[in-house]
Amino acid sequence: MKIKTPIIVLNVKAYEESMGQRDMDLAKNCAEVASETGANIAYCPQQVDLAWVAREIEIPCLAQHCDAFDPGSKTGWTVLEAVKEAGAVGTLVNHSEHRMQIADIDGIIQKAKELDLATIVCTNNTGVSTAVAEFGPTASAIEPPELIGSGISVSKADPEIVSNSVAAVEDVNKDVVVLCGAGISTGEDVKAAIELGAKGVLLASGVVKAEDQKAVLLNLASGVL
Amino acid sequence: MKIKTPIIVLNVKAYEESMGQRDMDLAKNCAEVASETGANIAYCPQQVDLAWVAREIEIPCLAQHCDAFDPGSKTGWTVLEAVKEAGAVGTLVNHSEHRMQIADIDGIIQKAKELDLATIVCTNNTGVSTAVAEFGPTASAIEPPELIGSGISVSKADPEIVSNSVAAVEDVNKDVVVLCGAGISTGEDVKAAIELGAKGVLLASGVVKAEDQKAVLLNLASGVL
Amino acid sequence: MKIKTPIIVLNVKAYEESMGQRDMDLAKNCAEVASETGANIAYCPQQVDLAWVAREIEIPCLAQHCDAFDPGSKTGWTVLEAVKEAGAVGTLVNHSEHRMQIADIDGIIQKAKELDLATIVCTNNTGVSTAVAEFGPTASAIEPPELIGSGISVSKADPEIVSNSVAAVEDVNKDVVVLCGAGISTGEDVKAAIELGAKGVLLASGVVKAEDQKAVLLNLASGVL
Amino acid sequence: MKIKTPIIVLNVKAYEESMGQRDMDLAKNCAEVASETGANIAYCPQQVDLAWVAREIEIPCLAQHCDAFDPGSKTGWTVLEAVKEAGAVGTLVNHSEHRMQIADIDGIIQKAKELDLATIVCTNNTGVSTAVAEFGPTASAIEPPELIGSGISVSKADPEIVSNSVAAVEDVNKDVVVLCGAGISTGEDVKAAIELGAKGVLLASGVVKAEDQKAVLLNLASGVL
Repeated sequence: MKIKTPIIVLNVKAYEESMGQRDMDLAKNCAEVASETGANIAYCPQQVDLAWVAREIEIPCLAQHCDAFDPGSKTGWTVLEAVKEAGAVGTLVNHSEHRMQIADIDGIIQKAKELDLATIVCTNNTGVSTAVAEFGPTASAIEPPELIGSGISVSKADPEIVSNSVAAVEDVNKDVVVLCGAGISTGEDVKAAIELGAKGVLLASGVVKAEDQKAVLLNLASGVL
Repeated sequence: MKIKTPIIVLNVKAYEESMGQRDMDLAKNCAEVASETGANIAYCPQQVDLAWVAREIEIPCLAQHCDAFDPGSKTGWTVLEAVKEAGAVGTLVNHSEHRMQIADIDGIIQKAKELDLATIVCTNNTGVSTAVAEFGPTASAIEPPELIGSGISVSKADPEIVSNSVAAVEDVNKDVVVLCGAGISTGEDVKAAIELGAKGVLLASGVVKAEDQKAVLLNLASGVL
Repeated sequence: MKIKTPIIVLNVKAYEESMGQRDMDLAKNCAEVASETGANIAYCPQQVDLAWVAREIEIPCLAQHCDAFDPGSKTGWTVLEAVKEAGAVGTLVNHSEHRMQIADIDGIIQKAKELDLATIVCTNNTGVSTAVAEFGPTASAIEPPELIGSGISVSKADPEIVSNSVAAVEDVNKDVVVLCGAGISTGEDVKAAIELGAKGVLLASGVVKAEDQKAVLLNLASGVL
Repeated sequence: MKIKTPIIVLNVKAYEESMGQRDMDLAKNCAEVASETGANIAYCPQQVDLAWVAREIEIPCLAQHCDAFDPGSKTGWTVLEAVKEAGAVGTLVNHSEHRMQIADIDGIIQKAKELDLATIVCTNNTGVSTAVAEFGPTASAIEPPELIGSGISVSKADPEIVSNSVAAVEDVNKDVVVLCGAGISTGEDVKAAIELGAKGVLLASGVVKAEDQKAVLLNLASGVL
């Protein structure tokens, strides 16, 4: 499944500030900003909130993670089929806080194609982005681990990793969208990422931890318009 | 947190038959049977459906699993605080399909006490049940791995493991409720378990895979009345 | 580090038949066959036997697995630096019985280059072989999981997966040697693999479980001469 | 299998300072100190050095870790049978850097009894020590995670955790020896631990990182004499 770009993907992780009702409220803020500005925003709620949020809001929701199992006796694991029936349009894959085995990344991406779901695969460097591109995911999000949650935007701290990844991924598979993660918190960061060739951003704490989440979302949206 | 006993705990795993709307429908069937018969029934939906189901139905819901992390940068992991805010009353712990490290089992149980949540810890033999009892969980569910999903009730196939576990757990901590899992599918199985000293059952395929789920639930309920 | 090809790589896994003195004896048999026939044979002993065997025999030894940690407080884990100091020339990576995260596979391969060690990365299909080739390992061993230990040679059961992998890997990186695993047990299997473009084989039970291990080794060696 | 007490158990982890020949040299230093002073010293070499070291030195060697598998197709994993054939007398279990599932801890301990091997199970608090005592290991080593590698001895920083663990473990199973880990580096620390009821110590960096390893070993030995 393709995603509309340029896009802002918000991953709310397991933060205290984005649990329960606060998860739903933040999702609704995203939907409002998307509606008011026309920006593409996708939302990744806490895993246990996925069906509740995805069934309620208008913008696309993705799971934060999906396990590489088929439906069956898999207590407490999340299978892609359940993600789809929950109303989500896809899943993050291989987030730096939830790394996956290479065969499982391949398996999830191929199954997502069959189920018409989107896969956004997180990678830690250009080499891994290139390798993942061989599997043909919907998108690849480059996030140097040392910048995650740092407040220092990858597009400023390490612009080459973004432009190199864009070039390397394009070289393998032109259909794979490259996103840019780690340290993004302003519309300016988003704009810088897009100028380096990225088609959007993946971020978390910059919004979730903000005092005025909606103001930050509006600012970010200005970067993709 | 205490649970009302005798109790039937239904774990719907990641079965195809209990995804999305079918998960909600099955939960509602459980609530109806509980209401009609007066039996205590608790429901463990698919992880991604937890908030959606728990906020809708009247009977207690539990997570199928919970990761031993504090809230924070833990993409795709389920923390106990999110389980609580999802509307659940507790969580299964250490299911045979999702085994946990001993320090994490201890950590989850202690945190659950602080959050006033219930913990039902699955164990594979009497020794592990006894060890877990030292942590003071709400309940311990003994499930010999070879009987899970077998259709052969542990209360028939291995009655001694049930009565021995009841005695051994009681010896360590009288407040820990012993449940009986693996192969339960009829009211007769439930009755047998209770006669062996268990305070209820934990089951999955016997209901989820049944052609007439509600009929099976009614039959099971007859075993605790 | 390059490996001499065509090569037979023997992985003795954690088999009862290849523990302790039997591990050393089998290694010596391999060294003898290599010496007598001129065939290139490499040996992967049980992890706890690595230094003992590698320091004793003349043919190259590899670790069966290596963890993606740097030296330090990592009780019970095997780091690449310790593999090198044990006298091994490299390590298997991502065996189907010991799958690794993609970032760790990349990390091990890059560190092995710095330490001048060989990496033989196991893969389950052509797509994963291609992705791994982007990291530039010494070799890639294609092993369809369903054929491992089956006694049915991949070179017979699924010749296309071998020739496709050879072509796809070559397309990404001509320096990566492609080996062929799963179900190999005779010199004929080896010859078939090499005719399909592989530069050698990775095998285990075919030798370890054989009544006359040396006879099987001699037969295998005939396939690479 | 019983171990002689009071005992000093040295775990060399995956430190740079204890690899290859330096691993063997340190083991020999331990053997010399044991022989010269009469102190009981056991040595846990790097996993890949286990057979090499255990077959060479006179004092007991233990594996740093063992996986809960039976011998077979388990590439890169360490099974207890291979530990025994390597010449070791047992294994550390559930080290804080290598935590294990509760069912696996139980499984390893029971199998070790059959194979007449010793198990030293690491625990992070009194509750976990008590739970583990139910399985009847040879020894339990209490190591508060925050003190590991700190240079601050648990016997000084948190004497109650030692004496409480000794009492609690004794209450469950008098045959389980309690060791004391984390932050031990002098004979005085050892003596303090023994005065609190421990039967020995488990340590690592205090010796491995020392400029004069033998001098530290002699000092430690003075604490058990």
